[in-house]
Amino acid sequence: MFDKLHEECGVFGMYAPIGQSVAKDIYYGLTALQHRGQESAGMAVWDTAGEKGNLTLKKDMGLVSEVFDAKTLGILSGNLGVGHVRYSTTGGSRPENAQPIAMHYIKGTLALVHNGNLTNADALKEQQMYRGQAHYTTTDSEVLAYEVISARLQCGCVEDAVRKAAEGLKGGYAVLVMSPRKLVGMRDPFGLKPLILGRRGEAYMMASESAAIEAAGGEVIRDIRPGEIVTVTKDGIKSDTSLCSDKVAHCIFEYIYFARNDSVIDGIEVQSARMKAGEALAKREDPGFEADLVAGVPDSGLSAAQGYAAYSQIPFGFAFHKNSYIGRSFIKPANEERADAVHMKLSVLKSAVKNKRVVLIDDSIVRGNTMKQIVELLRKNGAKEVHVRISSPPFLHPCFYGTDVANSSQLIASGHSTEQICESIGADSLSYLQIADFETMVGKMGLCTACFSGEYPV
Amino acid sequence: MFDKLHEECGVFGMYAPIGQSVAKDIYYGLTALQHRGQESAGMAVWDTAGEKGNLTLKKDMGLVSEVFDAKTLGILSGNLGVGHVRYSTTGGSRPENAQPIAMHYIKGTLALVHNGNLTNADALKEQQMYRGQAHYTTTDSEVLAYEVISARLQCGCVEDAVRKAAEGLKGGYAVLVMSPRKLVGMRDPFGLKPLILGRRGEAYMMASESAAIEAAGGEVIRDIRPGEIVTVTKDGIKSDTSLCSDKVAHCIFEYIYFARNDSVIDGIEVQSARMKAGEALAKREDPGFEADLVAGVPDSGLSAAQGYAAYSQIPFGFAFHKNSYIGRSFIKPANEERADAVHMKLSVLKSAVKNKRVVLIDDSIVRGNTMKQIVELLRKNGAKEVHVRISSPPFLHPCFYGTDVANSSQLIASGHSTEQICESIGADSLSYLQIADFETMVGKMGLCTACFSGEYPV
Amino acid sequence: MFDKLHEECGVFGMYAPIGQSVAKDIYYGLTALQHRGQESAGMAVWDTAGEKGNLTLKKDMGLVSEVFDAKTLGILSGNLGVGHVRYSTTGGSRPENAQPIAMHYIKGTLALVHNGNLTNADALKEQQMYRGQAHYTTTDSEVLAYEVISARLQCGCVEDAVRKAAEGLKGGYAVLVMSPRKLVGMRDPFGLKPLILGRRGEAYMMASESAAIEAAGGEVIRDIRPGEIVTVTKDGIKSDTSLCSDKVAHCIFEYIYFARNDSVIDGIEVQSARMKAGEALAKREDPGFEADLVAGVPDSGLSAAQGYAAYSQIPFGFAFHKNSYIGRSFIKPANEERADAVHMKLSVLKSAVKNKRVVLIDDSIVRGNTMKQIVELLRKNGAKEVHVRISSPPFLHPCFYGTDVANSSQLIASGHSTEQICESIGADSLSYLQIADFETMVGKMGLCTACFSGEYPV
Amino acid sequence: MFDKLHEECGVFGMYAPIGQSVAKDIYYGLTALQHRGQESAGMAVWDTAGEKGNLTLKKDMGLVSEVFDAKTLGILSGNLGVGHVRYSTTGGSRPENAQPIAMHYIKGTLALVHNGNLTNADALKEQQMYRGQAHYTTTDSEVLAYEVISARLQCGCVEDAVRKAAEGLKGGYAVLVMSPRKLVGMRDPFGLKPLILGRRGEAYMMASESAAIEAAGGEVIRDIRPGEIVTVTKDGIKSDTSLCSDKVAHCIFEYIYFARNDSVIDGIEVQSARMKAGEALAKREDPGFEADLVAGVPDSGLSAAQGYAAYSQIPFGFAFHKNSYIGRSFIKPANEERADAVHMKLSVLKSAVKNKRVVLIDDSIVRGNTMKQIVELLRKNGAKEVHVRISSPPFLHPCFYGTDVANSSQLIASGHSTEQICESIGADSLSYLQIADFETMVGKMGLCTACFSGEYPV
Repeated sequence: MFDKLHEECGVFGMYAPIGQSVAKDIYYGLTALQHRGQESAGMAVWDTAGEKGNLTLKKDMGLVSEVFDAKTLGILSGNLGVGHVRYSTTGGSRPENAQPIAMHYIKGTLALVHNGNLTNADALKEQQMYRGQAHYTTTDSEVLAYEVISARLQCGCVEDAVRKAAEGLKGGYAVLVMSPRKLVGMRDPFGLKPLILGRRGEAYMMASESAAIEAAGGEVIRDIRPGEIVTVTKDGIKSDTSLCSDKVAHCIFEYIYFARNDSVIDGIEVQSARMKAGEALAKREDPGFEADLVAGVPDSGLSAAQGYAAYSQIPFGFAFHKNSYIGRSFIKPANEERADAVHMKLSVLKSAVKNKRVVLIDDSIVRGNTMKQIVELLRKNGAKEVHVRISSPPFLHPCFYGTDVANSSQLIASGHSTEQICESIGADSLSYLQIADFETMVGKMGLCTACFSGEYPV
Repeated sequence: MFDKLHEECGVFGMYAPIGQSVAKDIYYGLTALQHRGQESAGMAVWDTAGEKGNLTLKKDMGLVSEVFDAKTLGILSGNLGVGHVRYSTTGGSRPENAQPIAMHYIKGTLALVHNGNLTNADALKEQQMYRGQAHYTTTDSEVLAYEVISARLQCGCVEDAVRKAAEGLKGGYAVLVMSPRKLVGMRDPFGLKPLILGRRGEAYMMASESAAIEAAGGEVIRDIRPGEIVTVTKDGIKSDTSLCSDKVAHCIFEYIYFARNDSVIDGIEVQSARMKAGEALAKREDPGFEADLVAGVPDSGLSAAQGYAAYSQIPFGFAFHKNSYIGRSFIKPANEERADAVHMKLSVLKSAVKNKRVVLIDDSIVRGNTMKQIVELLRKNGAKEVHVRISSPPFLHPCFYGTDVANSSQLIASGHSTEQICESIGADSLSYLQIADFETMVGKMGLCTACFSGEYPV
Repeated sequence: MFDKLHEECGVFGMYAPIGQSVAKDIYYGLTALQHRGQESAGMAVWDTAGEKGNLTLKKDMGLVSEVFDAKTLGILSGNLGVGHVRYSTTGGSRPENAQPIAMHYIKGTLALVHNGNLTNADALKEQQMYRGQAHYTTTDSEVLAYEVISARLQCGCVEDAVRKAAEGLKGGYAVLVMSPRKLVGMRDPFGLKPLILGRRGEAYMMASESAAIEAAGGEVIRDIRPGEIVTVTKDGIKSDTSLCSDKVAHCIFEYIYFARNDSVIDGIEVQSARMKAGEALAKREDPGFEADLVAGVPDSGLSAAQGYAAYSQIPFGFAFHKNSYIGRSFIKPANEERADAVHMKLSVLKSAVKNKRVVLIDDSIVRGNTMKQIVELLRKNGAKEVHVRISSPPFLHPCFYGTDVANSSQLIASGHSTEQICESIGADSLSYLQIADFETMVGKMGLCTACFSGEYPV
Repeated sequence: MFDKLHEECGVFGMYAPIGQSVAKDIYYGLTALQHRGQESAGMAVWDTAGEKGNLTLKKDMGLVSEVFDAKTLGILSGNLGVGHVRYSTTGGSRPENAQPIAMHYIKGTLALVHNGNLTNADALKEQQMYRGQAHYTTTDSEVLAYEVISARLQCGCVEDAVRKAAEGLKGGYAVLVMSPRKLVGMRDPFGLKPLILGRRGEAYMMASESAAIEAAGGEVIRDIRPGEIVTVTKDGIKSDTSLCSDKVAHCIFEYIYFARNDSVIDGIEVQSARMKAGEALAKREDPGFEADLVAGVPDSGLSAAQGYAAYSQIPFGFAFHKNSYIGRSFIKPANEERADAVHMKLSVLKSAVKNKRVVLIDDSIVRGNTMKQIVELLRKNGAKEVHVRISSPPFLHPCFYGTDVANSSQLIASGHSTEQICESIGADSLSYLQIADFETMVGKMGLCTACFSGEYPV
C-alpha cells in the first residue's frame, strides 16, 4: 500500500533428530519472517527415517496464518523441512510459483526455497530446456533447482551438486536445499542475501534473519559466510568454503528497511544501524537548524527518528496513529487522489504537531506520492514547518538481486533534483543520508550500494 | 459408494478459429464426461494468436461444477484448450496430480490430458530421471508428457514427437497434447481407450465420448483409429496412421458400464449394446424359467433389464427409488453393516415387488457386498424370489490399462464359484453373461476381454 | 432448471430417549426429503435432560450435504430435534428465512419447522406487530411460531397452545414444534400437507414422507390425521383430534409429482398412483391409436409411462440419457434458445427412437418451454411421431397452499387450448389426464384439486 | 492474546441525501473502529426513497475486512445505514449475536447497533417475554430494540419511542436506531460510552470515536451529550435533551486504553491524556530515582512512556520489536509456559536495553501474566533493572457497563498488594497512577472510576 521497496522472500529450514517434528517451528520461523513476503507461504517436510523424500507439501497464496492452520500443521509430519514466504518479483504473482519447489529426481525428492534473484536465469533456463528439462513455474528458483539436479547426475552427493551448480550462478541468492537425508544452505559469494545458522539442542536451523531462529526457540550460532555451503546431516554440520572470496557486498537495504530491527545480520544489529543513520542525518544539519519535534513515519522511520532526536536534542514524539487493521484486502477509496488511502492508514495526533516545526523521518522515498500526502496531513493538522529527512541516499538505480524495482523510471530521485522532490512533496526542506554515512551505520563492511551508487558488484 | 469398477478419466480438447473462446464448450464437454471421473477436473486454454503457450490453467479436486464457476470460465480465455476429469487409479489422490499437465519446454508451453495407463511408466520414468528430467507429480501422464518433450528435441514438429514418443509407450492411452499452435490427439494402437473426433463449424473437437461432442454443440465426424495421430492446426486436420495395425482390442467395459448409454463408441451405440446383453441373458435362461418382474439396479442395470424383458416377455418394471442427492460428501452411518448406505441410496417400491418373482439385473459384481444388500432389501419388501442376472461375465482378472482393480483378491468371482457367490448374495439363482455373447452385443470387433478371460493384448 | 411446480418444504422431527443423539438420524431423514426443497437446510437439537431449550442450531443456504458435515453433526448434540429442507415460495430466497425458526420465549426456547402456506399470514402478522412482536424473517412460518408463543401465554402447555393457535390459522400446514420437553406435530384440518408418524425402538419420529422415516431406520406407524395434534414426550405419544373434521382435501400433486415414488401417503403408495395415472391415460386413447414406444421424461414421467405401457401393450423403453451432474451451480449457455440447457440434461438414445412413433409421458406442463425442446430433440433424432401424454389435468389455477405458482399468467394451459399447446410444443397429439381419473389413481379420497378445478377447499 | 481489558463494541451510522451511497463510508468508519471489537462486524443500509425499511443486511464473525468485500459493499445500496464491530461480553460468541439487529415491526424495519451494557436487561427481557415478544439472540441489544419497539406502539414517532424506552434502561449505552426515514442516536445519561456527531456536506454521521468520522471523510461537529437523543432526518438534525442531567460519569478507560490515541472524546484528545498520565507517573517518582531508558510496551504503553520521558528527562527509547502478523488465527505453542506467545509477538532490541536500568511503562495490569514474561525478556537480554510503571491505578473491581471483566477474581490487584505483584512479575519496582491523577489527565470531568474505586455511578 505504501511507497516501499519490497524484499523478495524469506527462507527457513530445520533438521531435527528423528522422532521430533519441525512443522510448528518452521511455522514460527516463517511468522517471524512474514515482513519479507506476504504474497504466498509454503512448507515441505519429511521424515528422514522414512522412505526417501516422501514429502508432505503445503503452499498457497496468502499469509503464513492463512495458509497454515492447526490441522495442516498436524499433517506436515517429519523431522526435516524447509519453508518460504514470498513477495513476487520475478515470476509473477501465480499460485504455482509459490515455494518450496518440490521435484522428484533420481535420488528421491528435492525441495528448495530461495531468496534472491539470478541474473543469468534466462540463459540457464534455455540450456535446461535444450536438455529436455521442463519447467512448471516461471521462477528463477526452479532454474536453480534444475541446476542442482543436473549437477547431481555428475556429483557423488547433493552438497557437491550444490557447489557445482553455484559455479554457474550469477546474482544474489540465499537458498536451502532439502535432499532426502540432508539440509544444505548456500549463500551467494557476495553475500547479497542474508542467511543465518542456529540451533536448538541437537536440531539445526537456517533462516534469513536471526529473529526467526529466536522465534523458533533457537539460538544463533553465526552468519553463513558469503559463498559458504553448510550441510546438515544426522551427524551434525559441515562447511564448504571453497567458493568464498574476499569481495563481499552485503545489501545495505537490509539495514535500511528490509530486515526486522531486532535482527542481527552479519554482526550488526539492525535497530542500532537505523538509529545511527538518524544520528548521521542530525550531524549533517546546518548549525542554526531548529525544530520542535522529531517524528518518524510509522513504523519504518521510528528508529532513525529516535537516533536523530538523541543527537540533535530536539524532542522525539509520536505524530501519527497507525491503523494496523488495514491489510491487503482493504477496499480503497475510488477517487484517485485518495486512492492509496494514506489517510486511512495514518492519522495525525493533532496536539503533537500543532504549531510545531516538525522533522519528519522516513527510511526512503521511492515514487514520492505517499510522502506528499503525509506532509499534507501534517500541515492540515497545524504543523508550522515540515522538514523531511530520509535515512538513506537518493534511490537512483534499479536492483537486479531480488527486490521489486526493475527500472529507474519508477524512481522519483532518478529524474529529479532534491530541490524538485522537496517541492513536489511540499516539504520546507529535504535532505538525505549520504553513501559516506554507511560506515557510521554498519562499520567497515563490504556493501552492495548499487541502488544508490550504480556500482553493481556482479 | 457402490460396488463398481471405475474408469480413470475423460478428456476433451477443442481448437476454434482465432477470436472464439473454447472455455465454455470445454466446460460442457467435461460436464458430459463427468461420469468418467469425479475426483478432480481441470482445463488449460490459450490464444493461438498470442504469445506461444501463454496459458491459463485451472485445475482442482472436485466436480466440474465445483472447480469452475462463471468467473473462472471468464478468465480462461483462448481459442485452443484441453480439459480433463479424473478418478485416480495410478498416482494417488493428490491435488498436484490433477490434469491438464502444463509444462514450459523449448517450444513454449505444452499441456497434456490423458485417459489410460502406461504399463511401462516406471521404466520410462527412470530413464527420464537419468536425463535430469524432474517430476512434479506421481502420474504416468507426466511420464508421457516428458516422452513427447524429449522426442521434440529430435523431431521437427510436435506431431512427429508424439509419434516418436508413442513408439516407446506400452499400455492404453487416449491422449490430447496442446502445443502452442496445435492440438494433437493420439489413441493407443490397440484402441483400448476411446477417442472421438467432432466439429462445430470450423472448430474441431476431440473427446472420450461422442456425448461430450454433442454437449458442446458439435457433431461427430468419426472415431480416431487405434494408433492414429490426428493433428488440428489453423488449417484443419491431418492424420498420421503409421502406427495403426490390424490387431485392435477395444475395452469391452466401456459398453458394459463405463460409457454413457447415449454415446456411440467405435460405431456401436452403448445403449443398444447393453440392451442386447440383456437379451443374451434372457436367451440363456432354462426353458421353464418363470418370473413376474424384470427389474434393473438403477442406473447401471436398467438398459440390460429392458433388453431382457423385451426378449423374455416378462414385464419390465421399476423396483427401486434412487436418491440422487447422495454424493461424495454424504456422511455414512457408523455401524458397519449399514456402512455403505445402500438403503439410503436405493429404496424399494413395495407394490412393485411384493409377492413377485423378480429377475434383478445389474452390469457387474466386483466385491459382491452391495448386491447382497439389494437382494436383502427386495426380500424384506416381500419379493418371493430374486434371480440375479449380470450383464457381463465373472470378473476374474485385474486390469492394467486404467481402471481401478489392480489385483484379483478384491474380486469375489476370482476366488468363488458362481454357486458360492449366489449363496453369499442370498439370491435364488445367479447367472452371468458369457464371453461368447460379446459378439451379440457389439458385433465382430477386436476386444480386450482381459478382465474376464485373462488374455491381455499387450 | 426444468418446467416443474415446486413443493415448498420437507420437515423431520425426532424425540429419542435421553442419552441418544438424533442429529445423524435427522440428517438421514432430511437427505431422504431433499427433493422437497434444495434451497436451504437446517436442524435444531437439544438435550431434554439439560437446561430448557439450550439449543444447537445450524441452518444455511444449500443442500443437506452442503450445510452439514461430520464436524457439524458432532456439535449438534441432543436427543430431541427438528430439521427442515426448503424451497422458497413465500418469504423469498434469503438466508435468514431458512428454518428451523428458533425463538427464546417465556418457557425457554421454541424451534419450529413448517411445510405449507398460511393464507391469512398477513392479517395475523399485522396483529402480532400491534402486540409489539417483531419479525426477523419474511416467512409465514414465523407468523405461525408467534401464534403459538402468544397462545402459550394463555395455555397451560405447549400442545394446547398449538391447538389454540391452529384455530386462527388458514391454509395448508404440516408443522413440527419443539418445546423444551416436547415435540408437537400438527397437520392442517384439510390435510393438505402430508405428515407421517414413525418410531424406532423408543424413539418417535414425524416426517413429511414415509421414505424419510425409513431412511432414519424407523418404521411407519400411521399418517397424522388432518387436524390432529400429536405430542411426543418422554412418556410416549398422545393425540388431540378435537380439530379433525370430515372434510379433508389432500393435495393431489403429492401423488402426481411432489413425493418420492416409494413413499406411502395417506395410505396410497405414490408409485402405484403414478402407474395407475398412466393406465388411465392409456384407457382414454382412441381405439385405433398406434405407437411403437412408450417413453417417460426422466425421472418424473417414468412411472406413468410404465403404467401406460402395461395397459396399452405398446413397448416401454428408455428414450433419454439424463446427466445427473447438472445441478444448481451449472453455468447455462448464454444464447437464449438453449438457455435452459435441456439438451445438456437430457440426450436422446438414438437407436431407441429412430423411425419410431413415440408416446412421450410426463407428469405436467407448467409453462411448456421444456416440453417443446424435448419434442424437438426426439424429432431431430429420428422419431417419426411424438404423442405427448400428461399424467395430470391441465394446470389452470394458482396454488395458495405452499407451491410456487402464485398466478395463472405463468400457466400455459390457463390461456391456451389443448390444441394450441400441442401446436406450440410441436407434438403430433397431446392429451391430459382428467379430474375424474383421480379416483382411479388414489381411490375415494378427499382431495384438493384446486389447481386443476379452481375449487379451493378454504 | 495479551493481558488487556476489552471494550465491547464500536458503532457507526450515516444518513446521506437520497441518491448517495453510505456503505463504503460505513466500511471506512468501521475499519477505523476495529480496535473496539474484532469478533464480528455488520452493516444494515437502506434507501429512504424506497419502500419503508427494505433493508440490506450483512453481518458475520470476523474483522471488517473479512466480512465485507467489494461485491458485498456493492450490494449494500442505500443512503441510510448503521454498522457495528463487536467483541462479545454479554451474549456470548455466537454468529446470531452479531449486530446490527434488524427487526420488522409495525412501522417497517428497525435496525439497531449498540455499544455498552444494560444492567437491568434480565428484568426487561422477562417483561418482554410476558408480552409475547420472542428473542432470537442472547444479547441485551435485542432487549433494547424491543423496548424501543414496544414504546413505539404508544409514541407518535421513533425518537419519542427511543426516549420513552430510555427512561426504563439502566447501564451504559451508546446506541444508534435506524427507522425507515430516520437515524436516531442516544447516549446514556451518565455518558459512560462515547458518541460523536459529524458531517460531510449534507450527510450526517454518528460514531463511537471521532477518528471514525474523519476516516469517512467527515468533520466532527460535537460530542452527543450524556442523555441526549439526536435525530437525523432528511431535513437535518434535532436534539432532545430532556434526559440530560448534571451527573455525568465518562468511562476513564477510554482515555487509558480503549480509544485510539488520535480520537478526541468529550473534548479531550486521547494521546494528550495518555502523555499526561505518563508525566503524572514521573512526577510521583522518589527524588533520587534514576534510570537509563524509558520504554513503553507496544503499542499501549508508548504514549505514556513519551510523557514520562519528557518530564523525567530520562531518554525515551524503543525496547521491543512487535510482530504485527500475529492475529487471532495464530497457532500458539503447546507447552504451557510459552502458551501466550508473548515472545512471538514481542522481541527485545538487545542494544537498547543491555546494561540499562529500564523504566517500563504499560497502561494496565489485569491478570499479570504477560507483564511477568515481558520483564523476563528484558532481563534475559541484559537489562540491569526493570522498573514497571502503570499509567492507571490498580484494577480492583469488575465493570458492568460493557467491558469483559465481570468478576474480581481475575484481577491480580484485587487479591494482592503492590509489593506482591511486583515480586510476582519480577520487577525491581512497581508503581501505579493514582485516582487523584485523573484530573491531570483529563481535567475536571465527571468520570466513572468504578473499576479502580468501586464507586459505581448507577
